[in-house]
This record gives sequence, structure tokens and C-alpha cells, in this order.
Amino acid sequence: MYFQGLFIFSLLIISSSEAAVLDFCVGDLSLPDGPGGYACKKPSKVTCDDFVFSGLAAPVKLIPLIKAAVTPAFAPQFPGLNGLGISMARLDLAIGGVIPMHTHPGASEVLYVVQGEICAGFISSSDNKVFFKTLKQGDIMVFPQGLLHFQINSGKTSALAIVSFSSPTPGLQITDFALFANDLPTELVAATTFLDAALIKKLKGVLGGTN
Amino acid sequence: MYFQGLFIFSLLIISSSEAAVLDFCVGDLSLPDGPGGYACKKPSKVTCDDFVFSGLAAPVKLIPLIKAAVTPAFAPQFPGLNGLGISMARLDLAIGGVIPMHTHPGASEVLYVVQGEICAGFISSSDNKVFFKTLKQGDIMVFPQGLLHFQINSGKTSALAIVSFSSPTPGLQITDFALFANDLPTELVAATTFLDAALIKKLKGVLGGTN
Amino acid sequence: MYFQGLFIFSLLIISSSEAAVLDFCVGDLSLPDGPGGYACKKPSKVTCDDFVFSGLAAPVKLIPLIKAAVTPAFAPQFPGLNGLGISMARLDLAIGGVIPMHTHPGASEVLYVVQGEICAGFISSSDNKVFFKTLKQGDIMVFPQGLLHFQINSGKTSALAIVSFSSPTPGLQITDFALFANDLPTELVAATTFLDAALIKKLKGVLGGTN
Amino acid sequence: MYFQGLFIFSLLIISSSEAAVLDFCVGDLSLPDGPGGYACKKPSKVTCDDFVFSGLAAPVKLIPLIKAAVTPAFAPQFPGLNGLGISMARLDLAIGGVIPMHTHPGASEVLYVVQGEICAGFISSSDNKVFFKTLKQGDIMVFPQGLLHFQINSGKTSALAIVSFSSPTPGLQITDFALFANDLPTELVAATTFLDAALIKKLKGVLGGTN
Amino acid sequence: MYFQGLFIFSLLIISSSEAAVLDFCVGDLSLPDGPGGYACKKPSKVTCDDFVFSGLAAPVKLIPLIKAAVTPAFAPQFPGLNGLGISMARLDLAIGGVIPMHTHPGASEVLYVVQGEICAGFISSSDNKVFFKTLKQGDIMVFPQGLLHFQINSGKTSALAIVSFSSPTPGLQITDFALFANDLPTELVAATTFLDAALIKKLKGVLGGTN
Amino acid sequence: MYFQGLFIFSLLIISSSEAAVLDFCVGDLSLPDGPGGYACKKPSKVTCDDFVFSGLAAPVKLIPLIKAAVTPAFAPQFPGLNGLGISMARLDLAIGGVIPMHTHPGASEVLYVVQGEICAGFISSSDNKVFFKTLKQGDIMVFPQGLLHFQINSGKTSALAIVSFSSPTPGLQITDFALFANDLPTELVAATTFLDAALIKKLKGVLGGTN
Repeated sequence: MYFQGLFIFSLLIISSSEAAVLDFCVGDLSLPDGPGGYACKKPSKVTCDDFVFSGLAAPVKLIPLIKAAVTPAFAPQFPGLNGLGISMARLDLAIGGVIPMHTHPGASEVLYVVQGEICAGFISSSDNKVFFKTLKQGDIMVFPQGLLHFQINSGKTSALAIVSFSSPTPGLQITDFALFANDLPTELVAATTFLDAALIKKLKGVLGGTN
Repeated sequence: MYFQGLFIFSLLIISSSEAAVLDFCVGDLSLPDGPGGYACKKPSKVTCDDFVFSGLAAPVKLIPLIKAAVTPAFAPQFPGLNGLGISMARLDLAIGGVIPMHTHPGASEVLYVVQGEICAGFISSSDNKVFFKTLKQGDIMVFPQGLLHFQINSGKTSALAIVSFSSPTPGLQITDFALFANDLPTELVAATTFLDAALIKKLKGVLGGTN
Repeated sequence: MYFQGLFIFSLLIISSSEAAVLDFCVGDLSLPDGPGGYACKKPSKVTCDDFVFSGLAAPVKLIPLIKAAVTPAFAPQFPGLNGLGISMARLDLAIGGVIPMHTHPGASEVLYVVQGEICAGFISSSDNKVFFKTLKQGDIMVFPQGLLHFQINSGKTSALAIVSFSSPTPGLQITDFALFANDLPTELVAATTFLDAALIKKLKGVLGGTN
Repeated sequence: MYFQGLFIFSLLIISSSEAAVLDFCVGDLSLPDGPGGYACKKPSKVTCDDFVFSGLAAPVKLIPLIKAAVTPAFAPQFPGLNGLGISMARLDLAIGGVIPMHTHPGASEVLYVVQGEICAGFISSSDNKVFFKTLKQGDIMVFPQGLLHFQINSGKTSALAIVSFSSPTPGLQITDFALFANDLPTELVAATTFLDAALIKKLKGVLGGTN
Repeated sequence: MYFQGLFIFSLLIISSSEAAVLDFCVGDLSLPDGPGGYACKKPSKVTCDDFVFSGLAAPVKLIPLIKAAVTPAFAPQFPGLNGLGISMARLDLAIGGVIPMHTHPGASEVLYVVQGEICAGFISSSDNKVFFKTLKQGDIMVFPQGLLHFQINSGKTSALAIVSFSSPTPGLQITDFALFANDLPTELVAATTFLDAALIKKLKGVLGGTN
Repeated sequence: MYFQGLFIFSLLIISSSEAAVLDFCVGDLSLPDGPGGYACKKPSKVTCDDFVFSGLAAPVKLIPLIKAAVTPAFAPQFPGLNGLGISMARLDLAIGGVIPMHTHPGASEVLYVVQGEICAGFISSSDNKVFFKTLKQGDIMVFPQGLLHFQINSGKTSALAIVSFSSPTPGLQITDFALFANDLPTELVAATTFLDAALIKKLKGVLGGTN
């Protein structure tokens, strides 16, 4: 007998109704959010499916321009991550595929090569030093928060990587798109990048920007 | 010409010697650490290899007892992660393999199934509710910080998963090992777990504990 | 005269209506919460009683099984703590009483012995090392975040302790209850704890679990 | 041609509707706030004006008593700062003007002297040591979080300073006002400050306090 | 048999030498500290005594002026708290004893009345509103970070309270001591507090200040 | 008499030697740093000058290419800021001057126009939307963490701005310099920016890059 003298055990030490707070905070996207993330779904409506996400498993259509795609599992796609300080994404790179220069404004990243060979690197802010290397299957690489970085399929097969971030909402700012895929006037782009106006207009045309 | 009137460009806006701080802090394990992690390796000695880790790529010897293994890429193994709020590990599970009930005292976790089928779950603290599900290749699941959780190979092949944590030093406390693989006196284990002394002594024997 | 030349002092430097934000955020449990805690009660409705809690003063009914009780003053019970990074609880232990092995997923703990003698300890995650000691009245002990720990009345009188946590919502996961007081199938418990099915079913019976 | 083989570029890598979260969180003061700040204004309603504030540009009416004024640009006045960990304020000091002893409960401060000469200082908590100095135009000084500090116009012209804080809601507690401009009974003020009752009543009279 | 097929269990899943990091970071006061606290004592030198502190148990000599005393168990006195986000202190108040107006620049506080009756309160920064109440044995009260607050023995016996803080180094700034127990020139104190010079000099004399 | 019955006041409530920790942590640049910043200078060597910085007051030599300059007062230049969550910098822009597109990987920024007229803007990451506006003297604008932004002198006089950051080490990554002022091979730049090789080589030549 492991428990002696116990006939009725009707009281948990803390009843669930009192303390049922903040083990997790599955995001409720229909409510207003705050600086720390989404408001929490009511605990009584949370199910196991809130903590599982299959959106990284399916095959992804690549962007022709880059022969690659980024599929996020950030808090907006996977609200179970809300408030937990972590998220994931899937990178698909066909032969010759590239994830262009970009930053994540709010997170550091670790990349794991599931398949293929990827040349990846980042640029430090203090002295513009570049750290890049060709990664084989199973290698991991870390990209410190907010720094410009890139990934290129450097192998002879398609490549797949899983990346993880130190925030449920890391953000993604692709430099080319940020500069050319909007209505920022050409003269302002020119003044702040030193590219000439003709080139900027051409890039705006390609990427859907105006002005 | 994109840059006009520039003959000598010898001055960067901020010289690297002044501002070269804290893009990253590769851990120097030979120095004393602090509550926030390891002291930083001198920037001049940092190379790209500090940000790449291949220890998750190699095949791993499984623990016979659990037919599984956890291979960490935490800050002690991969000091490039130091201070960046993230880490990774690799889970190998042979057929029938199990990662026993455990917690990570300092981090939430996201698991990605690289291969095989894994039944994974966690137990909430507020009401002992269990959230578990069978995950297929490509599925991801999140385990909120500090909660008991487990992974079991529920498929007919070996399974491989990559897990990521919201801290470079998440910790790993396997309940069975914590309770039985040390010198905590049997009567204290009995009093705090309600298991009987004979069973505890048997488990201590198996797991290498004493007293 | 301490103030000269002052006839009318009708203007505070900052009017209260403008800056009246976030000295505190008394939780309003009727509104949706977020990852950082409860939404704030309107300042105009906050009174001193929101910052005072008497629920730890009253005598507490003990749980027969453990001859002990934990009375929380966490944010759900004491919403004045919301957002302030701290909470308290009261431990009552009759002669022979035990707070079983448990963790707080989101906080470190400090215990102060108000009365009696308590044997308390925790288990480190890195090497399963146990740190435990018998505490006398007035002693304090710290339990680092997320680690398994316990308290036992080791004296000849009842004992009372006040514990404080580094979070308003530290959580409390008692290992036995987490494993046996729910509907997690016996075969999953067996696979992840190495206890045999008969014992698990017995424990489930005692603690109110099923399956 | 910089982009080859691209005819249609209709898909961004991540569609804006999915990932449009938490680059910023302009405060919506009409919604309930939480411990981390205000709820976020809907992204579709955010305009550039939300990120610009002109309230520090206008001339300010000084408080006669102190010949000075503090004009805050904290989150309540400038909701674009919400969640971003920073705020500003403007200090105007006429000849002889003084910002009396005060603290900011939730932030450190850096002061930049735009014009004039300011004697500024703070008092450490550990040993009551005072750090003060006369600052010239262009000098900056830092005041660590929560410590008593002051600014005095020590020059022969009016002075202007811009101060910045490490929080969008730093708070401002002016010691004299906190002690005397409320209804805290005179005997409690006397007991906790060692000032005598007659003086306290006089100060309460001047500053609008009662009791 | 609970463990089958296990003859040799010589390998833990993670060897302790690799992962033995940051469950805790007992402060080593002989090494340089950093913004996050003390450097960590070597794990091999850590014993259970590092996590236990008896300095709050002993009777304390009161300060005659205030008939009270504050005995801290902050990280400098109790280095086991280093990095764990929490600390404690003991308040002794004789009949008529007072803990004068003070702030903790870096922490919120919760007070538990062990014995006696205490009138305690704090002053909000936004509108100088005072929240104060007479606390009985067993009551707890929270004081939000950085705000002026006080405790007075309002009963007919001596009083004892245990207070806990949301930081291992909360700091303690007693307003009277900060203003008068140092060498801040009388004219600066006068200018920033509106007290007259004669009174300031008298208070400086009593509290050991100069200038 | 304000203090009665006090003849000897030789004991402060807490002696300075015990509690003298962490009001501030002036950086000692000669010691190893950690993820949270520099190690602390010994308190006994700290003077008021550690908290004052005059490096933003002096006239600055502009970079001819951009007719502008950024003068940082980050922790490496102003170690008194270490650990305090804030820093400053000075922007000088001659007529036609430009601070090119850049990010601060670790901080949000607020800009205050001291003199002149500045057109400033940032680009959101979620939808490449641009927020920009012409700021007059006294206006402030906030730039959320990690996002691309720029400042241009849009007036007819030179302009001066003071910017403040939510970190003592915000970092500064100027996109053009990051891409072209280093040894990143031209083909990698081309692949990740879609600029053609000839243009990249020209820009590398101007900015001092190689390869």
C-alpha cells in the first residue's frame, strides 16, 4: 500500500479554478493584442491541437524569383506559441535557390539543415565583417539578432532547412523588398542607398513598387 | 556613377574599435560565467566556426534503457549561442524508444519531426490536464516552459526530431533520474513520492543511486 | 517661509490624467489576460484593499494524504500582484506533513520558516545532485527556478513557512498528481516513468486518475 | 537585367495579412491596458503620425514655484512609444529654475543639455553618496533607475534639456509632492520623515494637501 | 521488474560535465560583477549551505532613532540568490517603531506580518494618491516597484515582518538619509526640497551629514 | 527638535559595505564582458565623471560621402550607461546630408530635432509599408526596433538631432556598408541582392570592399 489512511481525496492542494493561469497563453487572434503578444484563448477552449502545427509539413510552392520559399510558424500562424519566446519556420530552396539578404528585427535564429547543402552567412554591425560557411546536412548555424543574413542552396539537390527563432514574432525584413516593393519615392531611395534613380525604378517595377 | 565627389573614404561613420560590442557574445568557457551566461570571447578571436555546430549531424549511440538519446546543442556545447536566447537539441528514438518524463526548468520547447512518428505530450500544472498527440513527419509541437513532457516513438521506424528552446541553457531534468540516480535517502524519496522503499531501492540500484 | 512667491499652485507638473499609467496594474479577472498577466483594473476603481490580502492569515484545512497544505497568494487570488514579478504562499505542515516533490515552472522560490523545523531540498538538473538541509525557525532557503524540490516537517511540532516567488504566477506542478491524477493512459505513464502498470493503476485510483 | 525569368511576382514570401504583427504596437488608449502597456491599435489604422509627436516643440508655461516645467512624451501622451522600451521629456528651467528631488520608479534617464547650464545630480542608495556636476550645453548625464535626483538651472540664462528614459512609462515621483500634496495624515508624515507637525501642515497648505 | 534488458547503465543522457550550467549561479563576491549580478561560484564548490541563510533568524539590534531595523538577505548577504530574481529581508519594529519613507529602486515588495500590527502604505507617482492600511498578523501587502512607502508599528507589542523583493538586489533608499546623511551642499538640498537651510543643517547634524 | 532621544547615530540601517551593489554598474572595459554588458568598475573608483559624457558637445567632422555624421554615446564610449538600458547619439547633417538606410539590431530609437528640418522614415517588416515625415525643430519620432530607417536633411540649413536608444549597445548596421564594405564575394552579394556584378564591384571599390 502506497497511500495509507486515504479514503477520500476530493481536494487537490490548489483547486484548478483558482490557479489555472499562465502555464501557457494560446493566442486568441480575435481579441486586441498587446506589446507582449496576443490575448489568451480561454483555458476551457484550449485543446491539444492548439499546440500542434502541421503547416510546415506540406510541400510549398516556391517563389520563381528566388527559387525558394519561407514558410513561417510564427504566433499568427501558430497561436500556441504566443508568449513562449520561440517560433519556427521552414526554408525550401530549389537548386540555385536563395533566401535574399534579410533581418529579423526581434529575434536570433538557429538554422538546421534537414537536407541538402546551404551556404549561409551574416554580417556583423560593428565592422561589417562577414561570417559565412557551407553547411552540410545536420549542421546548425546561429544568426544573432537583427543582423543581415542570407541562405543559398550551394548544392546539387534541393535543400530543406528548419529555422527557429528566439521570439514568437521575430519579423522578417527582406532588404530588397523593403527598399523597392513599396511607394517610397525614388529620390528618397536614391538618397539613402546611393543607387541611381534608373536602377531603382527598374527594381521597383520588378518588385511591384511605385513612385 | 553612384558616389560622386568621393575621393577618400577612409573614415567609417563609427570606427570598429569603438563600437565593436555585443552583436554577439560567443562564450569563453575558460572564464567565470554569470547569471546571464558565459563571458564573451574576444571579438578578434571569433571566427565563423564559432557560429556553426556539427554535433547534431553525427549518428548517436542510444541509451539501451530508453532506446533513445538526447544530443544537446546548448551553450556549453555550442558557445556561439551564448546570450542569444535560443538553443537546439536532437532526439533519436529507435523503434520503441522513449524520452522519459522530464522538464526544462528554463525554457519552452518546439519539436519538429524530421523523420518517423512520435507521440508527444505535456501535462499542465494548474489542473494536471494532459495534452498529447501523435505527430507525423513535418509536424511541430510546442511544450510550454517548465512543464512535464515526454516523447515516444509510436511508429514502425526509427524517429528523428529536432527540438529548439527559448534559452541557450534550458536545462533538462528527467524525473526518474532526478529521483533515483543520486544519494537522496530512500526515506526522503518515499516521503515525497509515496512510492514504497523497496521499489525506490530497486530503482536506485538500476539507475546508479545510493542510500 | 519655505515657499515664497507662491499664491496659486493649481497646476501639478504633470496632471494626473495624462501620466496615470502603470505604477501598478491590479488585475481585472473579468477581462481577457495576455502573456504578461491580467488586464489592468481601471485606476479610478483601485483602492488600498487591492494591495492587501488576508487569505494567508486564516487557519487552513490540511490534505489528509500529506498532512499539509499550500495556500497560494498568486495573481489569481491576489490580483494586486499582477505584473509586479512577485507572489507568496503559505505552507502548513502538521507533524509528519510533507509537501511532495514538485516544481514551479515559472519562478524561483525563497522559503522562510515561521515556526517549527522543516527538512527541505532540491535536485539540480545537470547532475541530479541533491541539496537538502534541516531548517530551523527563521532560516531561509532558496529553490532555483523549475527544479524539483520538497519540504518535510522534520520536527516534533506543526510547522509553518512563508514562501515567496519571483513571479505573480509561478505555477505549481506536483509530480505525483501530474503523473497519476489525470487520464493519461496507463501505458504512456508506464513507458515514460518505467513504473509498472499495476502500480500506476493503483496510484491513479488513489489520486483520482483514470485510464 | 537584374531580375531574370520573372514575369509575375504576385506572391510575397509571407503575405502581409499573415505576419503583420508586432513590428510595433501603437497604444490604443480606449482599450484596457496590461502590465506590458496599452493594447495595440489595429494595424490598418496606424499612420505615420502615430510615430511623430510635436508636443515637446511648443513653448511651455512654467510652474511659478519651481520656475520650471517637465513636459512628458511618455506612452500616454505619445502612444507610438508603447511597448518600445523608451520615452522622452522636455525640461524647461528659467533662471533659478529647479526640478525638485524626484525619482522615476521604472526607468533610467539620460539628460542632454540643449541650451544653458544645468547642475544635476543623483544620490546612490547604498551609501547616500551624491554624484553631481554642472553640465554645459551638449553634455549628457545618466541617472540610474529609481534613484533620487535633481536638476537646477545654474547658469545666467534659461535652460532647456531633453531627457530620455528606458521605458515608455517611467513614472515621475517628486518627493515634496508625494509627501505633502495628498491626504496622508500629518502624524504619519511626521512619523516617517521626522519633520515636525507644524512644518508638515504648512507644506501641505502650500502644496494642496489635507489632513 | 521495472527496467528490462538493462545490464550496464553507465551513460547518463547528458554527461554532467557538459551541461552543468546555470541551474543556479551562486555569487562569488571575489570576482568582478556585471549588470546582471555576481559571477558564479564554480559548481564543484557549491554546497547546500550556499542556498540556506540564517541571518534573518537572529535577534537584531534596533536603531534607536527609529526603534526598528531592516535586516537584508539580498545577494551580497546571501549569494545563493544571485540571478534568481528574488530576495528577502526582516523588519523588526519595537513599540512605536518606524521604517521611514523609502524606496527600492529595483524591485517590488511583498510584506508578510509574522507578529504584531503594522500600518503600512505607499504613494503612487501619478497622482500622489496614498494607499495605506493597518495590517494584522498573517496579512500581506504589496508595494509596487520604486514607489515611496513606509511601515509603522501601530500595535501595542513589538512587530516582526518578512518582506520579499522581485530582485536579488532591490536596493534601499531611505529618503531622510539620502537627503541629509551626506555632503550634498545645504543650498542644493534647500533648492530641491524647499526646506530652509537652518532645518537642513540641523537634520544633517543629526544624521551625520556635512556641508 | 525633530529627532528626540538620539545621542549616537553611528549605525546606518544597512551598512554601505554590505549592500553597495548594483545601483549602477559603470563598465570596466579592461575586463571580459558578458551577454548583459561590461563587468562593473569597482564602486570605490566610481566618480561623478563616470556618469557625464561631453563627447556629443564638440563639433564633428562630417563624412564627405553623406555630408553627415553619427556620434555615438553608447556603452563603449560612455561606460556609465552600462546595464541601464539606454544610450544616446548625435546626428549632424549638413545641407543635403543623409544618414543612409540602416538598422539598430538591438534597440528602438527616438529622435529629437534640435535644429533644422529632417525628413525621417522607417519601413515595416510585415508589409514593406513606409512611414516617413518631415520633422521640424522640436519634433520627435520613434523608430521601432530593428527596422530599416533613414534621416535626410530636408531643410535649407544644417540640422542637428539627438537620438536615444532603448539599449546601451544598440548597434548600427548601415545597409550599404554592410553589403559593400567588406570581403563578401561579389557573386554572393549578387545572388542575395539581385544587383549585378559590375555594380557591386563598383560599390565595393567606392566603399573599400574587396572580392
